[in-house]
Amino acid sequence: MTSKKLVNSVAGCADDALAGLVACNPNLQLLQGHRVALRSDLDSLKGRVALLSGGGSGHEPAHAGFIGKGMLTGVIAGAVFTSPAVGSILAAIRAVAQAGTVGTLLIVKNYTGDRLNFGLAREQARAEGIPVEMVVIGDDSAFTVLKKAGRRGLCGTVLIHKVAGALAEAGVGLEEIAKQVNVVAKAMGTLGVSLSSCSVPGSKPTFELSADEVELGLGIHGEAGVRRIKMATADEIVKLMLDHMTNTTNASHVPVQPGSSVVMMVNNLGGLSFLELGIIADATVRSLEGRGVKIARALVGTFMSALEMPGISLTLLLVDEPLLKLIDAETTAAAWPNVAAVSITGRKRSRVAPAEPQEAPDSTAAGGSASKRMALVLERVCSTLLGLEEHLNALDRAAGDGDCGTTHSRAARAIQEWLKEGPPPASPAQLLSKLSVLLLEKMGGSSGALYGLFLTAAAQPLKAKTSLPAWSAAMDAGLEAMQKYGKAAPGDRTMPPFLHLVQLDSLWAAGQELQAWKSPGADLLQVLTKAVKSAEAAAEATKNMEAGAGRASYISSARLEQPDPGAVAAAAILRAILEVLQS
Amino acid sequence: MTSKKLVNSVAGCADDALAGLVACNPNLQLLQGHRVALRSDLDSLKGRVALLSGGGSGHEPAHAGFIGKGMLTGVIAGAVFTSPAVGSILAAIRAVAQAGTVGTLLIVKNYTGDRLNFGLAREQARAEGIPVEMVVIGDDSAFTVLKKAGRRGLCGTVLIHKVAGALAEAGVGLEEIAKQVNVVAKAMGTLGVSLSSCSVPGSKPTFELSADEVELGLGIHGEAGVRRIKMATADEIVKLMLDHMTNTTNASHVPVQPGSSVVMMVNNLGGLSFLELGIIADATVRSLEGRGVKIARALVGTFMSALEMPGISLTLLLVDEPLLKLIDAETTAAAWPNVAAVSITGRKRSRVAPAEPQEAPDSTAAGGSASKRMALVLERVCSTLLGLEEHLNALDRAAGDGDCGTTHSRAARAIQEWLKEGPPPASPAQLLSKLSVLLLEKMGGSSGALYGLFLTAAAQPLKAKTSLPAWSAAMDAGLEAMQKYGKAAPGDRTMPPFLHLVQLDSLWAAGQELQAWKSPGADLLQVLTKAVKSAEAAAEATKNMEAGAGRASYISSARLEQPDPGAVAAAAILRAILEVLQS
Repeated sequence: MTSKKLVNSVAGCADDALAGLVACNPNLQLLQGHRVALRSDLDSLKGRVALLSGGGSGHEPAHAGFIGKGMLTGVIAGAVFTSPAVGSILAAIRAVAQAGTVGTLLIVKNYTGDRLNFGLAREQARAEGIPVEMVVIGDDSAFTVLKKAGRRGLCGTVLIHKVAGALAEAGVGLEEIAKQVNVVAKAMGTLGVSLSSCSVPGSKPTFELSADEVELGLGIHGEAGVRRIKMATADEIVKLMLDHMTNTTNASHVPVQPGSSVVMMVNNLGGLSFLELGIIADATVRSLEGRGVKIARALVGTFMSALEMPGISLTLLLVDEPLLKLIDAETTAAAWPNVAAVSITGRKRSRVAPAEPQEAPDSTAAGGSASKRMALVLERVCSTLLGLEEHLNALDRAAGDGDCGTTHSRAARAIQEWLKEGPPPASPAQLLSKLSVLLLEKMGGSSGALYGLFLTAAAQPLKAKTSLPAWSAAMDAGLEAMQKYGKAAPGDRTMPPFLHLVQLDSLWAAGQELQAWKSPGADLLQVLTKAVKSAEAAAEATKNMEAGAGRASYISSARLEQPDPGAVAAAAILRAILEVLQS
Repeated sequence: MTSKKLVNSVAGCADDALAGLVACNPNLQLLQGHRVALRSDLDSLKGRVALLSGGGSGHEPAHAGFIGKGMLTGVIAGAVFTSPAVGSILAAIRAVAQAGTVGTLLIVKNYTGDRLNFGLAREQARAEGIPVEMVVIGDDSAFTVLKKAGRRGLCGTVLIHKVAGALAEAGVGLEEIAKQVNVVAKAMGTLGVSLSSCSVPGSKPTFELSADEVELGLGIHGEAGVRRIKMATADEIVKLMLDHMTNTTNASHVPVQPGSSVVMMVNNLGGLSFLELGIIADATVRSLEGRGVKIARALVGTFMSALEMPGISLTLLLVDEPLLKLIDAETTAAAWPNVAAVSITGRKRSRVAPAEPQEAPDSTAAGGSASKRMALVLERVCSTLLGLEEHLNALDRAAGDGDCGTTHSRAARAIQEWLKEGPPPASPAQLLSKLSVLLLEKMGGSSGALYGLFLTAAAQPLKAKTSLPAWSAAMDAGLEAMQKYGKAAPGDRTMPPFLHLVQLDSLWAAGQELQAWKSPGADLLQVLTKAVKSAEAAAEATKNMEAGAGRASYISSARLEQPDPGAVAAAAILRAILEVLQS
């Protein structure tokens, strides 16, 4: 069995991917008959040095994503993980030479095939009289004893594209760019780690890891690494990597010391989540700064991938101010990120949260008769909800996760605790605002948010007046907020466990009756009694409704045979209020 | 068993990821005590509208990657796939209000939890006197029949960040931004497809697909899609997606027609290789243009992920010139790509490759006596190699893939075929150049590249003269090129099947003897005879060498007990040349 891929054909992968990149980037053009992408404004490069890079495909966005003003002039792509054809490299060199560039620098990752093919194209181009230099980049810090083949070319190569690109854009000559780039290339190191392998289109994964293993020091072609380690935390893995990369007994280490300034790259090898990438970036910044290393710039993203390998590589480049200027220089390359020209280390990473606004002093004395009546109402509401816990849960079990009663009891107990702390505010607006915050925090979930919304909105009309018309307006405001943000209308039934939004049905029915309070001379209790009855009838009528709003509504529209527990709870709350006011 | 993740703790994932993003981006700051990231230059926003967005974590780089001048002012992040806390949303609103902004627009993806929590924070902030508006984005085109809950918020939300950000940066007021954004939001659609699910840290994947299935129309929380389809080619899948998204009988379709101008986004849902992303981008461009749709801008990358889900989403936004200006407006947001302000459709995507340079006319007549002797030499070399095929393969089997003889025979047969086409050039420089191209093409692989390198470099000194000293210099140049690009020195033995580089050993030994040709009065045959003997001795001596260069050298350093077949072949070639010259 092969691994699934979104491709047209195994053979056409590299062609199609490059064509897509070029099609979507108006700054690029393909060179006909070759797997070569070039800047579309080649003719603007007269008198400058051209920079060509490339290698096997499968490392996207490298290298074609780094074509642009201030970076590469073009790239030559091979098949997946295969060196590009000599003829195509030569064609690219000829094309940039014909456009009037004064010489070409080939930037090659240190792999035998790439060295040979780029080298051969270089020799052929030179035989035609085109000045061509070649730098071979090896930034791998995995091997503690150096092989004669040297270090492999990894993600650090992208930094070389940037540095060489800035130099070429500034009009520096071929020999000088090659010289400077060779110096920079020696001051960097890269190390990879992955949770599993990748698979070349049409093939199986190249190695297997068990659930508690991590591969360290791997290349970018799915080849196994230098060490297999036990799964550990992000902090521990980053520490291990930085220790390995900077250990002076490691022949391929990068000479980073306390006081060093570095550009740091956290590169997604392809298939790691960006959540994890951020976590690794955080761990790397802390670990480096803990070692006294100054991070001048940090690049986090996908730069040099190994197909869909779920891992990362870390790159460190030692920098001074002149080199930083080259890193910061402008580029139009699509895959180079927006990097602010500001040091990472030493800046303030947080700001103090603003204080809660001061509460207006309570105009009606807490503990007065109004306050006491409020307390009585709340106590009755709480005891009612606690008494209904099992009944509400039973109703909820019929269609959901059976916790509606538990959720409302949690709210009731939170209110009881709060009442023990002292008498509630007598100002209705303040009382509702307080309850809103309390339910949001203690009741939690969507139910807490919905009650919170209702109460916050309802509190507003009561700030100025507390007359019966104001209470009716408060009910209207609360209902409107629930409808608006809950996106439900009366008659919607939402599915537990996602959301109990059907409080709305009984509350809406009550709100309709409470309109009567707006008429002059309306009677408090008479209207409220009608409202409670209407709410109870509406709750009962929820029996035969379909799920409407809430995330459940995307999936299913199950019919229910019991009244909705949220609607029953809301009606019960209204009856509890009525009973206290009647007594 | 849970899926492997590079994290410190399941509970701390969202905090660590946001901290990492902020640590690596000097334009951002955290709000202390909250999972909130804000622009660090808040104080520069006096008099402007602030834009806040956010939602559950796991969609990185959304939304924090889109904070910056010209995009978002800040984001509030929840736990993975969970709505953010109301208190944190409110704290963010207060923070931007205290910095002197004149109002806040909340950009919220259409999920019940987000609507409720952002809505509640909005109501609370308004109760404090802060002007706050809220737009709810639903760009999902999956559901053909609309649910009352509306369309889900997907990757298109990022385009809304861009549009709103450009308007806010231009000093447009709160109500006007909200109004314009609501219009833009109605003109877009998004559809996702994935090869498998993702897994929330600490949990199993949320759905399973078999090897020949693809999930269509999924959300960004690992929830299943609307349809499961059979695996197909990238072209077929893209066609199906675009058909679904633009079908006018689909209630959530985006009204794209022939002649429409669109911004197109190809969004990596997290774990797809960028190779496949490019292939999908290519297919999408072809399919859209095939429908007569004009692609004004194309964004390809990771914008709104669903952890490590290996899939993509396509977003289409209908645009006119004023809207494009907003898309093109500058931003410092780290995750917004470098997009050239040039139409994708209608531009030239390729350029003609340069012609092969004209060959210098052959100064020595082909078919003359020199040409005939060249042909005799080549024929003897070919017959020698063909005769050695089995022997070379046997030597190679001892340590490699046993194809060294086959490779050399392929070269020999290619030369024989070529000789049938007509007499070879008599000019040694032209002969070697021709052979170089021939071997590179027909012999192939690293062996072809190495012989090609040798011959290309050797041809150069023979352009001016063909004296014995020039031939010795040619050998030197060839050897130097092999050493330089092959990165091997005499005495290295490279491991098949990766690279037969040990031609170098016998050739180098011969080259040492050929130095004698540089002395006045040197004898052609006498020196060549010594050189051949020296080459044969060197080939024999490869028996006891370790692998040095080539990719194999990273893995193993196996000792071999047979002489290296490449070295044997090179010595045999030299003897064949000698024998013809002697006769």
